[in-house]
Amino acid sequence: MYRVPTDDYAFLLSEYFERDVVAHATDGDLTAGDAVAVIAAAGEFAVEVLHPLNAVGDRVGAALSDGVVTSPPGYVDAYRRYAEGGWAGTFLPKDIGGEGVPWTVHGALSELWSASNAALSLCAGLSIAAALALNAAADDEIRDTYLAPIVAGRWTATMNLTEPQAGTDLASITTVARPQADGTWAVTGQKIFITWGDHDLAENIVHLVLARTPDAPAGLAGLSLFVVPKYLPDDGVPGSRNSITTVSIEHKLGIHSSPTCVLQYDAAVGRLVGELNGGLAAMFVMMNASRIGIGVQALGVADRAFQQARDYAAQRVQGTVVGRAPGTPIAQHPDVARLLISMSSRISAFRALSMQLAVWLDAAQQDDSTQARELAEFLVPIFKGWVTEEAVAITSDAVQVHGGVGFIEETGTAQHYRDARIFPIYEGTTAIQSNDLVGRKMLRDRGRTAEQFFALIEKDVVELRASSDAVAARTVERLDRALAAARRATTALVEHAASNPRNVFAVSVPYLTLCGLLAGGWAHARLLAAQLRRADTDDRRVIEADFYGVHQLSRVHGLLEIIEAGEVAVGEKLA
Amino acid sequence: MYRVPTDDYAFLLSEYFERDVVAHATDGDLTAGDAVAVIAAAGEFAVEVLHPLNAVGDRVGAALSDGVVTSPPGYVDAYRRYAEGGWAGTFLPKDIGGEGVPWTVHGALSELWSASNAALSLCAGLSIAAALALNAAADDEIRDTYLAPIVAGRWTATMNLTEPQAGTDLASITTVARPQADGTWAVTGQKIFITWGDHDLAENIVHLVLARTPDAPAGLAGLSLFVVPKYLPDDGVPGSRNSITTVSIEHKLGIHSSPTCVLQYDAAVGRLVGELNGGLAAMFVMMNASRIGIGVQALGVADRAFQQARDYAAQRVQGTVVGRAPGTPIAQHPDVARLLISMSSRISAFRALSMQLAVWLDAAQQDDSTQARELAEFLVPIFKGWVTEEAVAITSDAVQVHGGVGFIEETGTAQHYRDARIFPIYEGTTAIQSNDLVGRKMLRDRGRTAEQFFALIEKDVVELRASSDAVAARTVERLDRALAAARRATTALVEHAASNPRNVFAVSVPYLTLCGLLAGGWAHARLLAAQLRRADTDDRRVIEADFYGVHQLSRVHGLLEIIEAGEVAVGEKLA
Repeated sequence: MYRVPTDDYAFLLSEYFERDVVAHATDGDLTAGDAVAVIAAAGEFAVEVLHPLNAVGDRVGAALSDGVVTSPPGYVDAYRRYAEGGWAGTFLPKDIGGEGVPWTVHGALSELWSASNAALSLCAGLSIAAALALNAAADDEIRDTYLAPIVAGRWTATMNLTEPQAGTDLASITTVARPQADGTWAVTGQKIFITWGDHDLAENIVHLVLARTPDAPAGLAGLSLFVVPKYLPDDGVPGSRNSITTVSIEHKLGIHSSPTCVLQYDAAVGRLVGELNGGLAAMFVMMNASRIGIGVQALGVADRAFQQARDYAAQRVQGTVVGRAPGTPIAQHPDVARLLISMSSRISAFRALSMQLAVWLDAAQQDDSTQARELAEFLVPIFKGWVTEEAVAITSDAVQVHGGVGFIEETGTAQHYRDARIFPIYEGTTAIQSNDLVGRKMLRDRGRTAEQFFALIEKDVVELRASSDAVAARTVERLDRALAAARRATTALVEHAASNPRNVFAVSVPYLTLCGLLAGGWAHARLLAAQLRRADTDDRRVIEADFYGVHQLSRVHGLLEIIEAGEVAVGEKLA
Repeated sequence: MYRVPTDDYAFLLSEYFERDVVAHATDGDLTAGDAVAVIAAAGEFAVEVLHPLNAVGDRVGAALSDGVVTSPPGYVDAYRRYAEGGWAGTFLPKDIGGEGVPWTVHGALSELWSASNAALSLCAGLSIAAALALNAAADDEIRDTYLAPIVAGRWTATMNLTEPQAGTDLASITTVARPQADGTWAVTGQKIFITWGDHDLAENIVHLVLARTPDAPAGLAGLSLFVVPKYLPDDGVPGSRNSITTVSIEHKLGIHSSPTCVLQYDAAVGRLVGELNGGLAAMFVMMNASRIGIGVQALGVADRAFQQARDYAAQRVQGTVVGRAPGTPIAQHPDVARLLISMSSRISAFRALSMQLAVWLDAAQQDDSTQARELAEFLVPIFKGWVTEEAVAITSDAVQVHGGVGFIEETGTAQHYRDARIFPIYEGTTAIQSNDLVGRKMLRDRGRTAEQFFALIEKDVVELRASSDAVAARTVERLDRALAAARRATTALVEHAASNPRNVFAVSVPYLTLCGLLAGGWAHARLLAAQLRRADTDDRRVIEADFYGVHQLSRVHGLLEIIEAGEVAVGEKLA
């Protein structure tokens, strides 16, 4: 059974940060206490409605027949209940009919949807991201037509970027949009990898499509964004069918219930969103939210996999456990215990970082804080890249804890392992995240934001240094060393950039990993500090902080060696 | 297309070691040149017959219907051709009708079978291991009855250890064998996870079953080994059906064409193999060969996954490659190049270690060398544990190189990722390997064999130190430091053992990993030395050695920190 991490969120929202971050972000409309109540209610829905469909969704999968995509049994009803419960609009602004909860609450809810049903959560997450993009960039007519039904969960939305020749390289997009006499655009082209591109959960599907107008400049500067609905809206309800065909759906390693479509647009009727040739900027709103969303999704699935492994290990008796009484479950085997705490300590770090990111995003909006915005932009690729890679490792650890039965599909842990493998790929691979981190967030200001980030960590280390606790002392020492390594790594990258850019991009993923490990160490230092402020004897957070310091932070020194070396091989020999 | 690593084997067998190891092991019957010819012939068979069935085997899988297991299309014919080609008996001794090739040749062939069809290779490998066990322990009557058809590939064999309550803990086995008046035994019980436990590839299936006789002592000391055939042999051919039922086959994450059976024995007719209550010792012959086999299997699948990723990256053009002309394929992207060489450099290390292990096993047999036997026994768990864990990582890297299409099943790379996940589990999980390494191979002689191993490495480092090559100098420096870390780690474990055994087993997997990384570094130092002896300009081995030193050997220092810390958490909080 999935146990909702409500207590962890309560701790994060009310003890981890120096103030009630929910109250601050909402001008007192909501408190951390209110947020926890919302999280608990969402948790109930996730456990009762979404979670039971996860396995059947994997087994049956989405199906395409006669051009129509059907979702697995139970999905239509579950999505209807999701919409009726008002969850589709929770995070969307009040002025378009949403509830306008802050990022902190949204982040927590996203974790629950993903942990209970990662494939279905994609449909929800993409619709939210699309609504944000439309709200930010579209004209009133489009906003009036499309936002209300998305907020209500009656319509869903998709993101159409990829084409067979244009994956990572969006400049190669060839889908064309031709102006029509009535002010609409005729969109023609093929888009692939369209998540929830067709399905039967909603009355209508709103596609946001990157395309090129006939006279547009080449490359990224010539992309415009169009809204192209499955059914043309007619007085607020879906009218005639637009000329969009679902050519096929992919047979994938995981997230089987999420239909991944090849969509063919044949002069489909679309409307321009925002400025002509301003498509990338408009899409970036959506991409940024989606990248955070995938990091949170990875956190959710990792936690679900961990919980299943922990529950199995807690009841499975096998052999004698060293230093323990006969009949002790395998959870107490030193190596199983190592795997379990290795998983849980990383997950705790992910969740704290997710909330930190949310707090910065809220502050960027609420206080118009440049520092918060810069720090959030710096952390997004780290969070997406590092958490998704680690989620793959954690779901693999969960299989390992199960031993032979972990390899049997009916156990259910293999599904998490399969599902998780897409996280470091979609919404930008880890290499893309690391290019963004190093190229755009780090080198562009020659490490200024990076140093802002390191200085924040240093401040917390100083605070922890005052503690007399033994684990605190060890944590300070480890974090000090890791921080020194991170600064040296940053200097090395700046120097690489001056001498040979290939050296930068050959070690940008190791640099991203180093930053992720450091960020996790920072999170644990603060979790530890918050826990030590408590007078209770629950030492899970203390053990996790200590374990993370030994088993994860210790990795940064090897990574520094890699980063300082730059590109070792030109790679020609191997290709 | 799968490219057979014949050239790498030629290099290993004739240049890597200081003498022709094949000639030495066979008293000159075969030379390294002969061995390469055998490997090339096997490679042709693997590419033409086994490899084309790998994807269909995954897609269709083995099926159970009315108690009968059917293999995927093409498998019956492929196995018949494997038998007719004489491959089943290649490694088996000449005195029982085999060809008696040495371990070096067997190791190479095993890699090819696994790379081309991992699931099918299990059937072949288990049959060989069973024949070795029977040959070593069984009486003449059993040997006369069973060995010839296994050597000829007409019958296959299985290994029956696991029961629902007895996985890692064989002491809990409850299957019982009751003596019959005619000298046979009536075997009753349920065995699970029986690989190729039933199928249609062979005329008969020979089950080796661990069971307990009625008056046997409790625990491991009361286990006896029985041979229990699917059909009772009648004058050399399969006669009446024995009472063994295939209850079910598992629905697994990978290796779909390998039927994993639940077998029910109902007073099935069996014969005792070897001594009463000596079952575990007899089975250990089989287990040891099987553990090496799984390490080699992991090498094969890792190489296959690497090759596919390399081939994809060599033709896929996407975006501009930094420092390269437009239209350069993604293989030249610094991060893709990093992933590819990261994979290939580990694979080269695995293959060299596989041959080292084979050379020691041959020497233990041929020269009756105690040192070779001890070193082989020390390396087996390292090889099995480290290579299988890394194979999972490498197949994951292969998916990553493909980006989004890697997640699509039709691409084929996802199959390797799914197949590989069982390698660190079956034939003893990585934790079991690390217990074996630390408990039996390391602590028992207080690090004497470990030190023998380290001294060998040191000797090669000294030789490389004489080189004027820059990569050689860097390699020496890195290996020196890694060696110092390994010695400190060994001392730490000896000290942990004296103070608290839980500290030992909480870090035994990190110790195994450290030893694996070091062994790989040793392999690369010798590959580099052998390459530098050549006058050609092919620098793949030089680049791989350099890359491995930076990206892999650098990890040992973080692992040392973990090993010295011992158990951080008791784990009670999490269970």
